[in-house]
Amino acid sequence: MYDRLKGFRDFYPEEMAARREVIDTVEAACRRFGFRETASPHLERAEMWTDKAGEDIVDELYAFEDQGGRHVTLTPELTPTVARMVAAKTQELSKPIKWFSTRPFWRYEQVQQGRFREFYQTNIDIFGSDDPRADAEVIALGAQLLVDLGLDAADFEFRVSHRDILGAVLRSFDADVDVREAIRAVDKSEKLSTAEYHDLLAEAGLSYDQAARFDDRLTETDRDSLSELAEFAGTDAAHDAVENLTAVLDAVDRFGAGEYCELSLETARGFDYYTGVVFECFDATGEVSRSVFGGGRYDDLIEGFGGQPTPAVGFAPGYSTLPLLLQRAGVYPDESLTTDYYVLQVGDTEREAAELVADLRGLGHVVETDVSGRSFGAQLGYADSINAETVVIVGEQDLANDEYTIRDMASGEQTTVPVDEFPPASGRPTYDDYE
Amino acid sequence: MYDRLKGFRDFYPEEMAARREVIDTVEAACRRFGFRETASPHLERAEMWTDKAGEDIVDELYAFEDQGGRHVTLTPELTPTVARMVAAKTQELSKPIKWFSTRPFWRYEQVQQGRFREFYQTNIDIFGSDDPRADAEVIALGAQLLVDLGLDAADFEFRVSHRDILGAVLRSFDADVDVREAIRAVDKSEKLSTAEYHDLLAEAGLSYDQAARFDDRLTETDRDSLSELAEFAGTDAAHDAVENLTAVLDAVDRFGAGEYCELSLETARGFDYYTGVVFECFDATGEVSRSVFGGGRYDDLIEGFGGQPTPAVGFAPGYSTLPLLLQRAGVYPDESLTTDYYVLQVGDTEREAAELVADLRGLGHVVETDVSGRSFGAQLGYADSINAETVVIVGEQDLANDEYTIRDMASGEQTTVPVDEFPPASGRPTYDDYE
Repeated sequence: MYDRLKGFRDFYPEEMAARREVIDTVEAACRRFGFRETASPHLERAEMWTDKAGEDIVDELYAFEDQGGRHVTLTPELTPTVARMVAAKTQELSKPIKWFSTRPFWRYEQVQQGRFREFYQTNIDIFGSDDPRADAEVIALGAQLLVDLGLDAADFEFRVSHRDILGAVLRSFDADVDVREAIRAVDKSEKLSTAEYHDLLAEAGLSYDQAARFDDRLTETDRDSLSELAEFAGTDAAHDAVENLTAVLDAVDRFGAGEYCELSLETARGFDYYTGVVFECFDATGEVSRSVFGGGRYDDLIEGFGGQPTPAVGFAPGYSTLPLLLQRAGVYPDESLTTDYYVLQVGDTEREAAELVADLRGLGHVVETDVSGRSFGAQLGYADSINAETVVIVGEQDLANDEYTIRDMASGEQTTVPVDEFPPASGRPTYDDYE
Repeated sequence: MYDRLKGFRDFYPEEMAARREVIDTVEAACRRFGFRETASPHLERAEMWTDKAGEDIVDELYAFEDQGGRHVTLTPELTPTVARMVAAKTQELSKPIKWFSTRPFWRYEQVQQGRFREFYQTNIDIFGSDDPRADAEVIALGAQLLVDLGLDAADFEFRVSHRDILGAVLRSFDADVDVREAIRAVDKSEKLSTAEYHDLLAEAGLSYDQAARFDDRLTETDRDSLSELAEFAGTDAAHDAVENLTAVLDAVDRFGAGEYCELSLETARGFDYYTGVVFECFDATGEVSRSVFGGGRYDDLIEGFGGQPTPAVGFAPGYSTLPLLLQRAGVYPDESLTTDYYVLQVGDTEREAAELVADLRGLGHVVETDVSGRSFGAQLGYADSINAETVVIVGEQDLANDEYTIRDMASGEQTTVPVDEFPPASGRPTYDDYE
C-alpha cells in the first residue's frame, strides 16, 4: 500500500462535511458583499516567484521542469496569478474588481501542528480602488464571515494598523534607523520580554532611551490620540497615514464592524509588500495564540508583477487556523453525516421502494436506500451509521395496508403513514409528524 | 508580464458563475443520492502510477522529485488516491461507501479543442457493493444530474453494456481470438466503415465470415434477445454477464431512469480496468460527437492498488465536455454576473447608505456599493456593469423626505419608497413592487 505524502491530508466525509460548511459560509458572505468567484491554474511559471529572489517563499516552492522544458511550480500563493489575470484584461474589467477564490496552495515547509504542505485558503481582494472604503469593506467582510460562522465580538478582534505610521515614528526618533529591522522587532514584541524587545530595537539603530519612548508611544496611542502621534512624527507621510487609517476605521464603523476592530500599532504584518492599512484577526481570548488570518493594502504588487499600477487590498482566511478559533469558541460544525431518509426495502417491494426513493430525492431530500441486497437488521445498522433521521420501511405487509412504516432513528419508535400521504409536496416530515 | 501555461485556464467571474452553477447542480444531485463529499491530496507518490507501467497515463504525468527526494506527481486521476483512502480505513468505513469529489487533475496531453492539461471532474463512486442496484444507482444519478441541469430524454442517452458479454461472444466464435484487440475494434466501430471494422476484427483473429456474423449479432441484440446471445455464447460467463446486465437495467427502470438508457453492446469503454457493466453518456442528437462522460464497474482496482478486495462502480463527469452538451441543448447557464442591489450614495449620506448596505446584506441579498468615491454617473455605470437589478439611491434630498429612490436598471425608471418600509424582512422587492 502506498502512503500519503507528509504534510498532505485526506478529508473523509465527516471531516469534509464540517469543512464544507465553513467554506460555504465564508463564500456566501463574499457573495453577499458582491465579490465574484474566480478560478485559476494550480501550476504556473516558476519565474513568477524566482524572479523576485531572496524571499523565503522561493525556498519552499514545489518547482520542477515540465515535459516541455518549462520551469514550473505549484502555486504557493494566489497574488502573482491574480496579478496576471488582472493585467491580461485590465481594459475590459470594470473597476473595482472584487474577486474571491477558494483553492489549495503548496509550500515545502516544516510540517507541524496546524501547518501543512498543502493548505486551503479563500483569497478575497478588491483591485482598482485606493479609497479607504475599500479597505473598510474588506475588514467588514472579514468580520461578517466570522459572525456568520457563529462568533461574536467576545470571540475575535481585528488589530488594525498602517505601515507608514510605524516608519514615520521610527524615523522621527532617528532618521537612520533600520525601519524594516525595527518593524520586525515590533512584529515580534508580543512574544518577547521588554528587555529583549528593546535590545532588538537597539540593534535596529535606536538608543535604549529612544526604544523605551518609542515603545511607550505605540502602546499609549489610541484612536483619539492618533493625530498627536502624527504631530510627534511631524512628517507629511505620518499625517497622511494617520488620516488614511482614521478614514478606514470610520468607514468600518459605518459598515457596522467597528466593534470588532481596535487600533494596534504593534501589528506589523508581512510588512514587506503591504503599503497601507494592515490588519490581523486574533482570538480575543488568546487561547489560539497565532494570527487567525490577516491582510491589508498592497498597492505596488500588481505593477511589480508586470501589470498596470493597480491599488489592491485583501485578505485570505485559511482553513488550517480558522477551524482552531471556531473549535475554541465551540461553533465548529459537527463532523458528522446527515441523512434525511433511509428507505428500507424488504420483501417483494423493490419497485415501490425505488419509486419512493426517487420521489423523495425529487423533493430535494437526502435519501439513501439499499444497494447491497442486505437484511433488515443490516440496513438498519447502515441507516444508523449515516445518521439517518427517519427510516421509511417499505415491506409487503405495509403495502398490503397501503401504508409505510416510519421509524424515528433516535428513539427507535415506529408509526405508520398512508402511502398516498407520503411524501408531502413540501416539508420534511419525521416520526413526530405522524405519531 | 508572465504568460499562462499552455493547456491551463483562468476563469473570470462571468465564466466561473456558469461553471459554479453547473458544478453546484451536479454536487446537489450527488448529495440527494446520499453521496458524501471527500477531498484529497493533489500531489501523490508517482509510484502509484509508474508501478503499473505501460499505461498511456504514465507518459502524461507531471512528475518530479520533491525537496525531500520523493518521486511525486500531480494526480492525473482520482482512483489510486481513493483506493488508498478506502484501504487506510477499510475497517471503520461502513459499506457501501458513497463518495464524490470535485477537483482538478493534470495530464501532459496534446492541447486541443475541449482538451486541457488541467481539467476538472466530479468523481462519483460506490465502494463495497457488487449488487446490480449499486450500478443502477450510479447510472440513475448520472441521468438525474443531467435532468437537473435542464436536459431531457431527447438530449442524451446512456449506452449500457457489460464487458464480459463481448469477450464471451468473441470466444464463442474462436477460442483463440485476441479479445482485447477485438474489443478495441468494437470501440472504434462507429467511426469506421464496415470494411475497416471487419479488417480490424480479422486482425484480432476472426475470419471475415465470423466478423460479419459477430457484427450482426451485436447490432441485432436488444434487451429482449440478450438471453439468446448468452445461449449463443454458451458459457457460464456469458450467462452471468447477461443476467447481471439485465438486473442492472431492471433496477435502473425501477429508479425511474430507464428512459435515458439503451443497451449498446458496441460500447466498450476503457475496457482495461472495467470488470462488469460499462456505460457512456452521449449527446442524443450526435452534435457533440465525443462521449460526454462514462463509467462502470471496476471490482479489481482497489485490490490492485494494495487495498482489500472491494467492489466498486462509478463515473466522473468532467467540466470540459459536459458544457458542450449543455450549450448544444441551450441550457448552459448564462455567463453573467447577478447583483440584487447597488446602493448608490451621494452627498453627505455615507452613514445611512452604509447602514442600508449592511441591512440588505444581512437579509441575504447580493449588494454592492461605492468603495471608490465616485460620481453619480460613474456609480450607475458600475451598477450596470455588474448587472444590478435595482439601484437604491441614498441622497440628501431622499433622506430629507424620509425615503430612498428605487431605480429599475433595465428600464431606467425610478420611484420612491419610505425609509421605514425598506428593506422588508422578507422578499427581494424591485422597482415593480413600489411603482
